[in-house]
Amino acid sequence: MNSPEIQSLALPHVAKLHAYTPGLQPTESGWTKLNTNECPYPPSPKVAEAIRREVGEAGASLRLYPNPNSGPLRAAIASHHGLAPENVCVGNGSDDILNLLMRCFCRPDRSAGFMLPSYSLYPVLVGVQDGASAVIPFDRSMRLPVDEMVASGSRVFFLTSPNAPTGVAFTNAEIETILSRLAGVLVVDEAYAPFARESAVSLLASHPRLVVVRTFSKAYALAGIRVGYALAHPDVIGLLDRVRDSYNVSRLSQVAALAALGDTTYYHDVVSRVCATRDRYLKIFAEAGWFTYPSQANFIFTEPRNAKGEAGPEVAKSAYDFLCGRKVLVRHFPSHALTAPFLRISVGTDDEMLVLWHTLQSWQKNA
Amino acid sequence: MNSPEIQSLALPHVAKLHAYTPGLQPTESGWTKLNTNECPYPPSPKVAEAIRREVGEAGASLRLYPNPNSGPLRAAIASHHGLAPENVCVGNGSDDILNLLMRCFCRPDRSAGFMLPSYSLYPVLVGVQDGASAVIPFDRSMRLPVDEMVASGSRVFFLTSPNAPTGVAFTNAEIETILSRLAGVLVVDEAYAPFARESAVSLLASHPRLVVVRTFSKAYALAGIRVGYALAHPDVIGLLDRVRDSYNVSRLSQVAALAALGDTTYYHDVVSRVCATRDRYLKIFAEAGWFTYPSQANFIFTEPRNAKGEAGPEVAKSAYDFLCGRKVLVRHFPSHALTAPFLRISVGTDDEMLVLWHTLQSWQKNA
Repeated sequence: MNSPEIQSLALPHVAKLHAYTPGLQPTESGWTKLNTNECPYPPSPKVAEAIRREVGEAGASLRLYPNPNSGPLRAAIASHHGLAPENVCVGNGSDDILNLLMRCFCRPDRSAGFMLPSYSLYPVLVGVQDGASAVIPFDRSMRLPVDEMVASGSRVFFLTSPNAPTGVAFTNAEIETILSRLAGVLVVDEAYAPFARESAVSLLASHPRLVVVRTFSKAYALAGIRVGYALAHPDVIGLLDRVRDSYNVSRLSQVAALAALGDTTYYHDVVSRVCATRDRYLKIFAEAGWFTYPSQANFIFTEPRNAKGEAGPEVAKSAYDFLCGRKVLVRHFPSHALTAPFLRISVGTDDEMLVLWHTLQSWQKNA
Repeated sequence: MNSPEIQSLALPHVAKLHAYTPGLQPTESGWTKLNTNECPYPPSPKVAEAIRREVGEAGASLRLYPNPNSGPLRAAIASHHGLAPENVCVGNGSDDILNLLMRCFCRPDRSAGFMLPSYSLYPVLVGVQDGASAVIPFDRSMRLPVDEMVASGSRVFFLTSPNAPTGVAFTNAEIETILSRLAGVLVVDEAYAPFARESAVSLLASHPRLVVVRTFSKAYALAGIRVGYALAHPDVIGLLDRVRDSYNVSRLSQVAALAALGDTTYYHDVVSRVCATRDRYLKIFAEAGWFTYPSQANFIFTEPRNAKGEAGPEVAKSAYDFLCGRKVLVRHFPSHALTAPFLRISVGTDDEMLVLWHTLQSWQKNA
C-alpha cells in the first residue's frame, strides 16, 4: 500500500488479506478450457428464450428493481426439491451463500471448520470475517476423519461433497454420523452433487442443523449468471435473509435460473453426457496407470506419470506447462503436498477430451 | 425462531438483526410506481442489443464464469470519469460496495458514521457487521452539522449526496471541509448525483480518504441488473477487491452496464428530462404551499397540506393511503419525526406525474 493513511484506517485483518485466486479466464479464443469446472455444453435453450422475453424489445423491465426475495425462483427451487419456499435462500452465486453463512456463524471465538484440501474459498471467507478456523487435513485416502471434524468444535463446518479438487463424494451415512456428533451447523456444499450418486437434500427434513448449498454454475451451465442457493431449516434461511443484500440477484439471472430449472429433460441429458465422458476418462487414466480418485463430480483429479513412470509435483507441473503451451488449460494446485502431484481436469466435450488426452500423450512422449 | 439449536448457534448480533425493508414491488400491473426512485424511462436501446448479442442464439457464453474483475467495464467507468482502472471497483449494485466498505473499516470498536435521516441501509449494514455506529441527526434545515460529524471520530462516514429521502445535495466545499477535519474515510454515496449540480468525483485526485459510490440503478435505468461501483484511491480499491466475491457481477450485467455507459447522448437526455419534470413539480408543490426541499435527485420530498392547510404525520399518512387506494405508490417514512410529515415521490414520466398530482388534488378535496 502506498497510502499509510488507508493502511492505518483499514481493519488490520483486512489489510493482511489475500484475495481468492479464481481460475484463469483467457480472453482470446483457441483455448481448450478445462480449468474451472464449467459445463462443456450450453444451457437449456429455454434460458436464452427467457432472457429475450424479459429483455423484450427495449429492455424496459430492467429499469425496475428485481424481486427482492427471488420469489418465483425460490418457489420453483423448493418445489424441485420437494421442500417449502421457507427452506430456500437464493444467492448471487453459491459463493454469496457461503459468505452469508460465514457471517451468521463464524467470528474470532467461533470457528468455521473445513477440510484441506477442499474448496479454497472457505479460508478466504473466514479471513474476511476475521474468524477462527479449524482446518482438518485429509490424508491421501481422502476418507473423512470424522473424529477430528467433531473434535474441532466448529460452530459451522463446510464440507464439499463431492469434494474439490478430488471429486470424492461422501455418503449420507457419513453425513448423518457427523450431524449426530457435531454440535454446530453442517454445510454440505453440493456444487457438484448433480453428478454424484447421492445428495444430502433428503436428510434436511430430519436435521435442522444441516444446510445444503447448490449452484446453477455447473450442471445447469450457468456460471455466467451467478445464481446459487441454500436449502435449510426456515430458521437458518431467516438468518441468511437478514444478512443478505435485499436485491442480490438480478432480474435476468432470476429468469435464467427459473427457465433452466424448468427444463428437466435437458438437465438430465447434460448430466448424463458429462458423467458418461467422465467415466470413460476415469477408465482411460486408470488404464494408463495414472492414479485417479473415483470422481463423482464434473472433473477428474489424476496423477500424471511421465515416460519413465514417475509421478510427483514436478511431473504434474511439467504436464500442466506442456498443456498450457498447447492452449489446453487445466488446474494445478502446487501449494499442498496432497494436490501438487495431480492435475484437475474439468470434464469437457468428447472433442475437448480427445484434444486433452492426445496432448497428454504427446507430453508423455516428449517431456 | 422455532429451533433453539439454531438460535444458540447463530452469532447473537445476527439473531437480533432486522433486515432492510425495501420499497414495495407490486407484481400486478396498473400501479403508478413512484416509490423506489427507479428511472421512469427505459434504459438505452443499446443495453437490450448488448444483452441479445451476449446471449446469442443459445446463450452459449452463459456457461462460462464472468470476468472476475469486470475488467472491460472497470476500464470504461474509469475512462468515463477521467480516472484509472485502479481507481474503480465494480459491485453487485452499489449496496454490495457499501457492504464491502463496512467490512473494511467498521467493527465493534471502530464506528461507521451516517446521518439521520439518510439511506436506511447503513444501519442495517452496521448491524450485520456487529459494528459501532455514530448516528448524526439532521435538523429540519437539513444542513450538514460538520462539527458533530467530525467529533464522531468515525473510521468511515457514509454521506448520501444528494441525500435520501430529502434530495438535498451537499457542496464540494462542505465535503472538502469534512475531509480536512475527519480522520476517517469519507464515503460520498452519489446514487443520485447524476441529477445534481455537483459531484465529488473531482475531489478524488487530491483526497485519498474519499470514496465516491455510484450506481447504474437510477440515471442509467438499470435497477434490475444490479451494478454499482466505487471510485477511490487504488489502496481503497485494493481493500474492496480483497473482501468482495471474485465473481460478483454476472456476464449480462457487465455487458448491460457497459452498453449503457457508452450511450452518453441517451443518458444526458434521460437525466435532463427527469430534472425538467422534477423542477416543474418542485414549483407546483411550492405554489400549492407545500414545503418541499430543493431536490437535486430524481425524487421530491414534500410535506402535503390538507384542505384546512394542516401538515404533519397524520396528514402525510392520509395522503399516502389515499394515493395507495388509487394505485399510486409513493414512499412514507413514519418512523422519524423529520420524515413523518413528508412523502417521497420518485420523479415519473409527465403522464405519471399528472396522475399523481390529480390524485393528490382529489385527496385534498375529499380527505
